[in-house]
Amino acid sequence: MKLCGKPLRNRANSKYDPLDLHRCFREDGHSGKCEEFPYLRHLATCSPKVAKKIMRDSTKTTGAAWKSEDAGPNRISRWVMLLSDQELNALGIKMDMLKPIVVSKLRDKAATYDQCMNVAMNLTYSTYGMAHAPAPTPEIKSYLESFFGPIVGGSTVCLVCKAPLDYDDFALARRGKAEIETAHSSPRSHTAKNVGFAHRLCNIAQGDRSVKEFYAWIKTILQRTGEL
Amino acid sequence: MKLCGKPLRNRANSKYDPLDLHRCFREDGHSGKCEEFPYLRHLATCSPKVAKKIMRDSTKTTGAAWKSEDAGPNRISRWVMLLSDQELNALGIKMDMLKPIVVSKLRDKAATYDQCMNVAMNLTYSTYGMAHAPAPTPEIKSYLESFFGPIVGGSTVCLVCKAPLDYDDFALARRGKAEIETAHSSPRSHTAKNVGFAHRLCNIAQGDRSVKEFYAWIKTILQRTGEL
Repeated sequence: MKLCGKPLRNRANSKYDPLDLHRCFREDGHSGKCEEFPYLRHLATCSPKVAKKIMRDSTKTTGAAWKSEDAGPNRISRWVMLLSDQELNALGIKMDMLKPIVVSKLRDKAATYDQCMNVAMNLTYSTYGMAHAPAPTPEIKSYLESFFGPIVGGSTVCLVCKAPLDYDDFALARRGKAEIETAHSSPRSHTAKNVGFAHRLCNIAQGDRSVKEFYAWIKTILQRTGEL
Repeated sequence: MKLCGKPLRNRANSKYDPLDLHRCFREDGHSGKCEEFPYLRHLATCSPKVAKKIMRDSTKTTGAAWKSEDAGPNRISRWVMLLSDQELNALGIKMDMLKPIVVSKLRDKAATYDQCMNVAMNLTYSTYGMAHAPAPTPEIKSYLESFFGPIVGGSTVCLVCKAPLDYDDFALARRGKAEIETAHSSPRSHTAKNVGFAHRLCNIAQGDRSVKEFYAWIKTILQRTGEL
């Protein structure tokens, strides 16, 4: 599908997203207004929290795992973190005021605008593939399928444990934390292929490791304990 | 070894430890002052943080994992949590002012004074069994060995992954969290047999599960992903 791609220059810029990179992702030649996340229009209505989560996790640097006092500025756009310290300084983001550990976390989450938008699209596609997910509107269905192939209900699995994910788990929360989190197969690569949803506990267990490293690690444990 | 067992009545009581349960754990018939943690005297000198960690983790309800704003009163003695809400109320601890999740976490950590003291003793023994641990004084060595058998350097393993633990990891910390944590084989049983040390990442991965449940869980993952 060819996309419109017109710059969305009238978007309100925040301090932590000072670059004019936003574009229209509706189909080329569309009527009406340009839109950045047209495929989220349906989820935004029936499940606004999920839609916001997809937008936030795909485009922003922060994650629930390090929301703490010393986490530094929250919700910087990932593509802003591709700029140099000097460029950021000119934009009013003083990286040298942050703790080194915070800087390294922010830099680890850097990704291009296009990567982020691909992630958002793919997460939306994955959401519709979950058991008990609502059906997408025909328009959104054909939009997403043109990029990722047929949407098959119940086919979306946890990135870590590979068990099916249930859409209803988005609404569940323990200790204030959602039961489904956005996860990375390889922690420092924010691409559609590398990002997916995972059970919260699976994501926690995976930690900073890649999924492959996690499998190798748990295999070693089972071998060492004689459980294999 | 028969212990002195005299009550330590002159101990300063805090709001969250209002019961006079503390006793002397020196050998019966000892000379000099009574002492609650005589076997920690050496670690308290050469590694005060480890000694404090053992005292704290064995006797108090809190853990680093839930140090957050809504965690409620910090460092309640575990045996205090065996009292009823009414008894606690009389002591100035208002359980009904706390969030239910905090109450349940506090109650989960309840243990008798004797259980706590056995845990402290066993954790000290485990510490001396770690690779690169300092040698205990002869007095402490024979004290601990009389309860748990010979101290063998390098024999202490992580409660979860069963790989050897290194004493030097006590001093290591990532993101402000120590690399060795106190862990429970079964999360809600605070006994010497059930408590040990674990790598921080192993403890995190174990989460609220028992170690057995954790092994079963990771085995399922490996089976599902075809890694076995």
